[in-house]
Amino acid sequence: MKHIIIIAILSIIIYSPEMMGKPKSTKKGIENIRQYRLAHEQAIIKEFCDLLSIPNVAEDKENIQKNTVFIKQIMEKRGFEVQILETPGNPVIIGELGVKKPRNTLLFYIHYDGQPVTPSQWTDSEPFKPVLRPGKLEAGASVPKPIPFPTGDEKYNDDWRIYARSTGDDKAPIIALLTAIDAIRTQGLALNNNIKVILDGEEENGSPNLPYALEKYKSLLKADILFMCDGPTYYNGEPTLFLGARGITSLSITVYGPNTNLHSGHYGNWAPNPAIKLSQLLASMKDKEGNVLIKGFYDSCIQLNTKELEAVKTIPPFDEEIKDLYGFSGTDGEQKPLMESILLPSLNINSFHSGNTGKQMSTIIPSTATATIDIRLVKGNEPAKMVQRVVDHVEMQGFHVVTNEPDKETRMKYPYIAKITAEENGYRASRIPIDTPAVQRIIKAISENSGSKPVLIPSLGGSLPIYVFEDYLHIIAVGLPIANHDNNQHQQNENIRVGHLWRAIETFAAVTLME
Amino acid sequence: MKHIIIIAILSIIIYSPEMMGKPKSTKKGIENIRQYRLAHEQAIIKEFCDLLSIPNVAEDKENIQKNTVFIKQIMEKRGFEVQILETPGNPVIIGELGVKKPRNTLLFYIHYDGQPVTPSQWTDSEPFKPVLRPGKLEAGASVPKPIPFPTGDEKYNDDWRIYARSTGDDKAPIIALLTAIDAIRTQGLALNNNIKVILDGEEENGSPNLPYALEKYKSLLKADILFMCDGPTYYNGEPTLFLGARGITSLSITVYGPNTNLHSGHYGNWAPNPAIKLSQLLASMKDKEGNVLIKGFYDSCIQLNTKELEAVKTIPPFDEEIKDLYGFSGTDGEQKPLMESILLPSLNINSFHSGNTGKQMSTIIPSTATATIDIRLVKGNEPAKMVQRVVDHVEMQGFHVVTNEPDKETRMKYPYIAKITAEENGYRASRIPIDTPAVQRIIKAISENSGSKPVLIPSLGGSLPIYVFEDYLHIIAVGLPIANHDNNQHQQNENIRVGHLWRAIETFAAVTLME
Repeated sequence: MKHIIIIAILSIIIYSPEMMGKPKSTKKGIENIRQYRLAHEQAIIKEFCDLLSIPNVAEDKENIQKNTVFIKQIMEKRGFEVQILETPGNPVIIGELGVKKPRNTLLFYIHYDGQPVTPSQWTDSEPFKPVLRPGKLEAGASVPKPIPFPTGDEKYNDDWRIYARSTGDDKAPIIALLTAIDAIRTQGLALNNNIKVILDGEEENGSPNLPYALEKYKSLLKADILFMCDGPTYYNGEPTLFLGARGITSLSITVYGPNTNLHSGHYGNWAPNPAIKLSQLLASMKDKEGNVLIKGFYDSCIQLNTKELEAVKTIPPFDEEIKDLYGFSGTDGEQKPLMESILLPSLNINSFHSGNTGKQMSTIIPSTATATIDIRLVKGNEPAKMVQRVVDHVEMQGFHVVTNEPDKETRMKYPYIAKITAEENGYRASRIPIDTPAVQRIIKAISENSGSKPVLIPSLGGSLPIYVFEDYLHIIAVGLPIANHDNNQHQQNENIRVGHLWRAIETFAAVTLME
Repeated sequence: MKHIIIIAILSIIIYSPEMMGKPKSTKKGIENIRQYRLAHEQAIIKEFCDLLSIPNVAEDKENIQKNTVFIKQIMEKRGFEVQILETPGNPVIIGELGVKKPRNTLLFYIHYDGQPVTPSQWTDSEPFKPVLRPGKLEAGASVPKPIPFPTGDEKYNDDWRIYARSTGDDKAPIIALLTAIDAIRTQGLALNNNIKVILDGEEENGSPNLPYALEKYKSLLKADILFMCDGPTYYNGEPTLFLGARGITSLSITVYGPNTNLHSGHYGNWAPNPAIKLSQLLASMKDKEGNVLIKGFYDSCIQLNTKELEAVKTIPPFDEEIKDLYGFSGTDGEQKPLMESILLPSLNINSFHSGNTGKQMSTIIPSTATATIDIRLVKGNEPAKMVQRVVDHVEMQGFHVVTNEPDKETRMKYPYIAKITAEENGYRASRIPIDTPAVQRIIKAISENSGSKPVLIPSLGGSLPIYVFEDYLHIIAVGLPIANHDNNQHQQNENIRVGHLWRAIETFAAVTLME
């Protein structure tokens, strides 16, 4: 009920295409954009919450469709020509907003799907019912209870946060971009560039059908610069530009014990225990400093050049704050700061499961033990080859590697058996050179129009399917993330800090004003 | 409905105490007992199924009480004086059936509680709704569907099985003992010994209140020989006598990463991953041959004497059949047969859990990793000292060991933190010498009255709280298990082979006839 009045306000900012493209000075862009936002905070958040309220796990086809309809509608309100286009999986949404004399065509990549949710892990709220909290949920701290969304003359505080799945990853950029366009127009600023947007519906599944979509719809997507709007800004909250992202591949390893759980008394220290075998196997993959011991794991990495290494050195360090925030003192590779560590490929255990825990725990020898592992790739690493290196390692540790559940004959032949299944949708890393002219123009636009020089990151630690844009659209792709670094992306209690959303509107306005 | 007629049959075998103790020849005991069973199969199974239908997880107080009432009732039908006696936890049931000129007083220990259940893991049946199957559920084999329980003139086949929680562990001995008494009386044989029974309601929780009960009710429990009726017979199904059992202690180890799950891209190979740390820690505890590498782990074991070692050598080997049955080829300590392996203490991982699996899997660095471990103890090992050896080992591996969730200060001070919580209810092993005169008399009774020399096992691999009987009752304690070895004890699809139940009636009759 609290948003009913706001709908009227929202309707004021709906424009017809005829109003586009009035050339005006971009000076004082940031103040104008901020004024607009201050006057429309409640309408902006209302539209955002409506979007967040539609569940968006990729497998939930019914709700995925509702997301596409809603997004099409709010883009069309701004004058975009929008198409919901089929792929073998979830549809992509492509929108275009043309201006009369465009300097360039800018393409924004955003995804509208979100990570799977475990509602029971959320604190006093549900993944798809956004709540506003007057601060951050922190382990051990007193929980900031949800507060009502402001009405009337009430304003938002920058440090308040909205909690819901996809607040940070990745629905905020949709709202921020549309609001930036509203603000530019309302304040009489010049939209100097054609704006295109592509919205992926399966990014959290590894974007399996994005290549299909880019190939099929490439004429619609023709553009000069691609902005990947996903992931968090740098820790200081300043506008952040990244020139690449790690790739990813995942695999699952299952080690076998008896074909059924066995009583640990009658068979303990005789029947093989798969949990200890898998522990020994995983332990053989990394040393205590976090170095991956798998043969050849680092061989194919393309090193950064001098300029890029210099850029890394200029990033303000934030490591101690992060350790304090997340409550740990030791890191992998103690000598290396975070921003250097993420320039290497990683091997990370996502999960390890064997036997039952909690009330279901019983004194048995488990039948199987399974670990899932993700490997983040850097430029030069091929997903399939990296998986093969793991397979080779597992074999060198004495395991017979299979790809399907072992049959009786296999079980009776090999004392050590590992089933390894690799994710088919892994993809390689991308990274464009720091001295690319377009990169320099983007830095200039952000510096001049938003008041801050962006933090420049050669490669994001997270993964984005940038390679498909490079391969299919032959485009310059950069990352322009907006979420707070502590947005709990991919986890329970995902959130966005309100101040980051406001800043995102200004940053998006800055690049759309780019000359 | 199928059991309605049987109730009438059952009533025939209800005796008054006056009918007890007619001295008669015990010759041909086994044939007499078998004749009785053949004539009353349906009534025996009906009573058994009624008992199995009452859920018996120790925490389920309401149903635990229903079990006690039911068991009291069926014991009283046989003339037992039965008391349901309070303890700080679940009650114990103590029953006594006196004869005029008893040779000895025999005390039977049985437990009426069962392991926790995960109904979803059961195949086409529910833990507390017994079903009859015409064979054994085997991985990969075609599933023998439940069949109706016999009625009218139909007989049971020895290879049929009844599936339900506690069929094997440990409700079958209740029915087998009562039926043995029915058979002895009906066939006019001599019940030469006073029979006492104690039923524990918390054995699967480590019998925390059994010492209390034995101390408080010791005058009621005064006896010459204790039969522990739990666990499986030897693999060949012959009557089995064990002279000890391993003790047990359990512990849980939690290793810490960040205080919340973290995105594995943004933080992978920098933020510490608890799953790899715990894998490395567990890997340090055992070598690939299954030897425990924890300092002093084997030091306190009291070795078997020559006679006991000889007895072990005469046990017919069954190792290859077990490997084939449970589908594995390699064992811990490849050189040692099963019956020798279980004479050593074991360290076994019951469960390992970190991150989410299946549909909830996401590419994160998990916040914690937890393993539960059980340690089976042999004579000489003290539970607390064995746990301390593990704690010492964990510290030697560089971990700061805590017993409660670490606070921020602890997290920021120690890069490696392990929370270790030990089960309070662990207990030590027991083992009586093979040349104890009572042991020789029992062997004679079984050999003469049931037609088979029992398989003699110096110590069971599983754990039983024999020590409490020794400490509080100063009694000779031996084990007389009856379940089939493949009864899926402690797991889903727990079952008893019908032929084993029939054999149990004969074995129990044999010892109650003991002169």
